[in-house]
Amino acid sequence: MTATLIDGRALAATVKETLAVRIGELLAEKCSVRLDVVLADHNPAGSVYARNQAKMCEELGIEYRVHPVACDADDHTVLGVVSMLNSDPDVTAIMVHLPLPAGVDTHRVQAAIAVEKDVEGVNPANIGGVLYGRRALAPCTALATMRMIESTGIELAGAEVVCVGASTIVGRPVAALLMEAKATVVSTNIHTVNLAEHTRRGDVVITAAGVPGLLTGDMIKPRSIVIDVGINRITDADTGKKRTVGDVDVESVLPVASHLSPVPGGVGPMTVAMLLRNTVATADAG
Amino acid sequence: MTATLIDGRALAATVKETLAVRIGELLAEKCSVRLDVVLADHNPAGSVYARNQAKMCEELGIEYRVHPVACDADDHTVLGVVSMLNSDPDVTAIMVHLPLPAGVDTHRVQAAIAVEKDVEGVNPANIGGVLYGRRALAPCTALATMRMIESTGIELAGAEVVCVGASTIVGRPVAALLMEAKATVVSTNIHTVNLAEHTRRGDVVITAAGVPGLLTGDMIKPRSIVIDVGINRITDADTGKKRTVGDVDVESVLPVASHLSPVPGGVGPMTVAMLLRNTVATADAG
Repeated sequence: MTATLIDGRALAATVKETLAVRIGELLAEKCSVRLDVVLADHNPAGSVYARNQAKMCEELGIEYRVHPVACDADDHTVLGVVSMLNSDPDVTAIMVHLPLPAGVDTHRVQAAIAVEKDVEGVNPANIGGVLYGRRALAPCTALATMRMIESTGIELAGAEVVCVGASTIVGRPVAALLMEAKATVVSTNIHTVNLAEHTRRGDVVITAAGVPGLLTGDMIKPRSIVIDVGINRITDADTGKKRTVGDVDVESVLPVASHLSPVPGGVGPMTVAMLLRNTVATADAG
Repeated sequence: MTATLIDGRALAATVKETLAVRIGELLAEKCSVRLDVVLADHNPAGSVYARNQAKMCEELGIEYRVHPVACDADDHTVLGVVSMLNSDPDVTAIMVHLPLPAGVDTHRVQAAIAVEKDVEGVNPANIGGVLYGRRALAPCTALATMRMIESTGIELAGAEVVCVGASTIVGRPVAALLMEAKATVVSTNIHTVNLAEHTRRGDVVITAAGVPGLLTGDMIKPRSIVIDVGINRITDADTGKKRTVGDVDVESVLPVASHLSPVPGGVGPMTVAMLLRNTVATADAG
């Protein structure tokens, strides 16, 4: 017996198909569907990301606009751009690409994004809204993790879900979404005593610790669902080439788990789809 | 052997003494320390609370101002009062008494309170700030629960803390604070399968389920810390009189636990102290 791989690319494609239909309807109603991004000049990683994003938005019929800020811009300038986008009624979805120029207070900029336009869910008011059970834009990676779990058909109410890692990017926002989904949630971190005792009780185990090979087959319950959210760049011992792996020791986990969301090809593609989903949601609400 | 009772009234008195010293310093520096509350007319519970609050503030040297709204006020009116307080530089601490007039959207009003003046921590941006590990005003009951735990001297990093109940008022915000304190956090709810298995592993057990007698001695680990945050009004079988009890079966828990925060006299008085603490903190920051 071997675990079923949860195909993030296929699930993301399905999400995009559904979104394309909704976008078509909105455009037919003369509503615009639009994503406005703030991007620092001379930011190679951000530029590549933005180019791919532009292409994907074009394919789906989402208007994509880049608002560049100079590489030496200060808080005042970046906050000014965000404020302009916040007050523009034609702008429904705002994303701020990181890294921002050196010296800019990223947290301050994120908290300044209008709550209802914050498609990445980086304004604390949005995850606070999730925690308080209100309508809110959840962070994309956490939302993607939930979709991967839900794709297995598990009933989350009453299920025991163990999060390995309590980072502010993944572990904590996922815990907030899981509490809202009525799961029994176990949040672990580097200080947790005997991690394996916790993971072995999980109906679902989510790894987001940034440690290659951390979760092994002997650490999970037979037929449990494993969602790998780790992103680690390692050098392959055989080929000497760099490659991306998650936190899961795939070889030992596959024979034990019922489902595994792998890295790459799992939560990653779904995270991109969730950004598009939030973008369409804000256009829908607008 | 019997558990040590954590005396919330004594701890709250100590907090207030420390605050009184700081308030004295701030007043000597010509800084005002002030609490502005919004209170609906003809709200008997709120009025009693506000009168007690006024008295306590007066004792400590905190200026207390009530901003009444008519009992038939609408969203627009209440939001107008909050907006006026938000933009007044002399106002550093805002509390909105509940219930608001019928028909007013409480969540909308709470989300409108300026994040840095929200001394009750009811704006989702504040608990979101806690979850994201940023400087934020935490909700008073959750903060009080943390103080009761900390008073025992336990090291929270690596400790297993089980929350019984995942309400938006207590269970979830406490979980956010505990994650920030590096604890292993187990959030349970009414759907949790075999609750006792979870509580028996807790170094700390927090009950906030609203079920009298829910947590019994056989459900906890010897020498664990039990924090009762339940508030239940029951009729005494012997006397026929109403009284307030928590979620803990005190008789069976006392011989097993190392510490018990009781109801009444535990988290309740400390919650009031935490509101004052947040009020002084905002004056300090101002």
